[in-house]
Amino acid sequence: MLNIKKLDTLTAEFQSELDRLLAFESEQDTAIERTVEDILRHVRHEGDAAVLEYTKRFDRLDVATMAELELPVERLQSALDNLPADQRTALEAAAQRVRSYHEHQVMTSWTYEEADGTVLGQQITALDRVGLYVPGGKAAYPSSVLMNAIPAKVAGVAELIMVVPTPDGIQNELVLAAAAVAGVTRVFTIGGAQAVAALAYGTATIPQVDKIVGPGNAYVASAKRRVFGTVGIDMVAGPSEILIICDGKTNPDWIAMDLFSQAEHDELAQSILLCPDADYIEQVMVSINKLLPEMPRHEVIATSLRDRGILIKVQDLDEAVKIANYIAPEHLELSMDDADVWAKKIKHAGAIFMGRNTCEAIGDYCAGPNHVLPTSRTARFSSPLGVYDFQKRSSLIQVSAQGANTLGQIATTLAYGEGLQAHARSAEYRMTTKS
Amino acid sequence: MLNIKKLDTLTAEFQSELDRLLAFESEQDTAIERTVEDILRHVRHEGDAAVLEYTKRFDRLDVATMAELELPVERLQSALDNLPADQRTALEAAAQRVRSYHEHQVMTSWTYEEADGTVLGQQITALDRVGLYVPGGKAAYPSSVLMNAIPAKVAGVAELIMVVPTPDGIQNELVLAAAAVAGVTRVFTIGGAQAVAALAYGTATIPQVDKIVGPGNAYVASAKRRVFGTVGIDMVAGPSEILIICDGKTNPDWIAMDLFSQAEHDELAQSILLCPDADYIEQVMVSINKLLPEMPRHEVIATSLRDRGILIKVQDLDEAVKIANYIAPEHLELSMDDADVWAKKIKHAGAIFMGRNTCEAIGDYCAGPNHVLPTSRTARFSSPLGVYDFQKRSSLIQVSAQGANTLGQIATTLAYGEGLQAHARSAEYRMTTKS
Repeated sequence: MLNIKKLDTLTAEFQSELDRLLAFESEQDTAIERTVEDILRHVRHEGDAAVLEYTKRFDRLDVATMAELELPVERLQSALDNLPADQRTALEAAAQRVRSYHEHQVMTSWTYEEADGTVLGQQITALDRVGLYVPGGKAAYPSSVLMNAIPAKVAGVAELIMVVPTPDGIQNELVLAAAAVAGVTRVFTIGGAQAVAALAYGTATIPQVDKIVGPGNAYVASAKRRVFGTVGIDMVAGPSEILIICDGKTNPDWIAMDLFSQAEHDELAQSILLCPDADYIEQVMVSINKLLPEMPRHEVIATSLRDRGILIKVQDLDEAVKIANYIAPEHLELSMDDADVWAKKIKHAGAIFMGRNTCEAIGDYCAGPNHVLPTSRTARFSSPLGVYDFQKRSSLIQVSAQGANTLGQIATTLAYGEGLQAHARSAEYRMTTKS
Repeated sequence: MLNIKKLDTLTAEFQSELDRLLAFESEQDTAIERTVEDILRHVRHEGDAAVLEYTKRFDRLDVATMAELELPVERLQSALDNLPADQRTALEAAAQRVRSYHEHQVMTSWTYEEADGTVLGQQITALDRVGLYVPGGKAAYPSSVLMNAIPAKVAGVAELIMVVPTPDGIQNELVLAAAAVAGVTRVFTIGGAQAVAALAYGTATIPQVDKIVGPGNAYVASAKRRVFGTVGIDMVAGPSEILIICDGKTNPDWIAMDLFSQAEHDELAQSILLCPDADYIEQVMVSINKLLPEMPRHEVIATSLRDRGILIKVQDLDEAVKIANYIAPEHLELSMDDADVWAKKIKHAGAIFMGRNTCEAIGDYCAGPNHVLPTSRTARFSSPLGVYDFQKRSSLIQVSAQGANTLGQIATTLAYGEGLQAHARSAEYRMTTKS
């Protein structure tokens, strides 16, 4: 019998126990930090030579020139052409749905004119060039390539440079096919901190980008944190979480499998169920123990559920919503009647899956919304990856002759108040009337 | 005669000289880093006691309880009531204009329904509680209080907690008045890394916030970087910059003063002029030397212009635009005819000031747009502070019964392809037809 932590909101220790189980401290490993610091400095100063050296050392690719580390676009297309038909169809259908959804996010420039002719607004532009980090090995998901690349393309980013390590030269066909579907511009078979450094600083071969997105291991995460400011980065994700609020009327096998679908990612993933019905929670436990042996990844699932899973008996659904807002989960399933009405009470969540039919898995792959979501309570202040992460705004200000007088009056008063005389004088020059 | 670096785009060394002059490396001071690390840990574990101890040590405020470090809201209102009438009028007029402009930025939720009844969208919510850092001493600008607080209020943030150090108990009346105008909820007279830590982790007295915004010294910047992830932060700003493109037909005194208005902020501030007319550049130099002695802050201005100022002779305005896009300046003045047309060619800038009447100073105080802007070439990938920084998005997904079949087909194919069987099975449970 798998042992999953059960909590009841009526117990005195509920809040402290919850906080203890939610706590996740991403320790910074000093050895990793030092290594990454060295790699960044080396690539920044030595460029391609350093990238070649690290790629030889870490990925055992012994090539003489950077050109050998670039995959031609035809290679991506042939990976796509050689996919089994059902996989190609699914990949292209998913990409089309993700694209359609993200097109709703495109921001457009706006201006308005005031009575005196002064014009104010914001001009929206796309980033010029974006770097997409794709992990090698087991964590390389084609769906992740789509979710990171398509919003950039929809935003109008002209160049999308993908880096993906290929240790011992082993290439992932599904990942390359996804790059073809997503419209990636160039692909380099490099990875780790050296790939992040090459994208951030540029080398003779690899163009400097404006932003780097995509998941990676601890070295990649550390490198991204360090180059932030030189380039933009997406969030550095923690372990994935799901929180399910269920009224106790969904098939318990479904809920058990939804909890598994989060837990199978990683031993640190967190699956939480909130339900007002104690009997139902027991039924889900029965389903968990029945279904677990059938799962190929049962060891990962069992570890995740035992170490980080929580089954919470709440007093009612309103209390469940309150707890969900406190936790601010990455994924929130509302497995209940009138889920769309309950969703309006949710203040903090990465994605809200409404209704018994809506499992997280469909959102992960193909519903349309992005699967790159804020983890570890950061949904309190951040959003899913989107087109808006690849566009930016410039304020627009055009002051009319009359506006120069009225605005100049305000600006000069405040500027003198702050002791900034050049500010005041430059506004005064534009004033034709002085009070 | 003040010596300002002159460049000509036709010379061979232009690009390398430009890069050298633009380079600004914000060195991380190891001693500061260690101190901040200690302060954060101490406040995290000791809470109010640690905050009291640091406030006594650094600000020489020897109080026994945190309650003595909170300013009542009435204190803010009395600061406003006691302001000279012209300052109060200017402050309230500026706040009203900033509010009106930012109301254009409010994001709203959206959904759309697909043919099979599946509903997709994004739900927009405000952050619950925001911390506003305001520096003590000479860098305390009331305009900065307005620019940071008003977008949060417009976004619908319920609680705005301001922290402002008051070394030796000296309070800045203009700053407190601005807090009253902006609608700040609570004010604590604490500062430094200890204030950032208190806001990020919460103490018995100071509530934990979701995001911390506002400028600060190197300790504050380091503390903000370190608490990022626990809370959101705004950008960590570098020195301020202005880039002016002038066609050579604006009064050279105006342009000289506009360059001064950036330079007077700080010795590290950077002022750049691009002009196709070499004679005009000389006229601006004459104006600079004529006007400089009149400026109270002439020493700061002279140092900034000598060390970091650049006067660039370009071949034409198109080339000027190209260079501006490379530099991605924080402030860009287009002092020329048809500035609104030229602005459409600008891809990267924090704010664009269009036309001879539009000096940066008016934008700094009261035009309406935010004066918190991306510095040091980060306008390539980031935006002015805005209402959007205090709202966030949750994806909305409601899959219909029919959608569960069609989307389930795609999701299961991709999930099996990625080896994630629980994902596939949870989607299959919802399918009533299988292919």
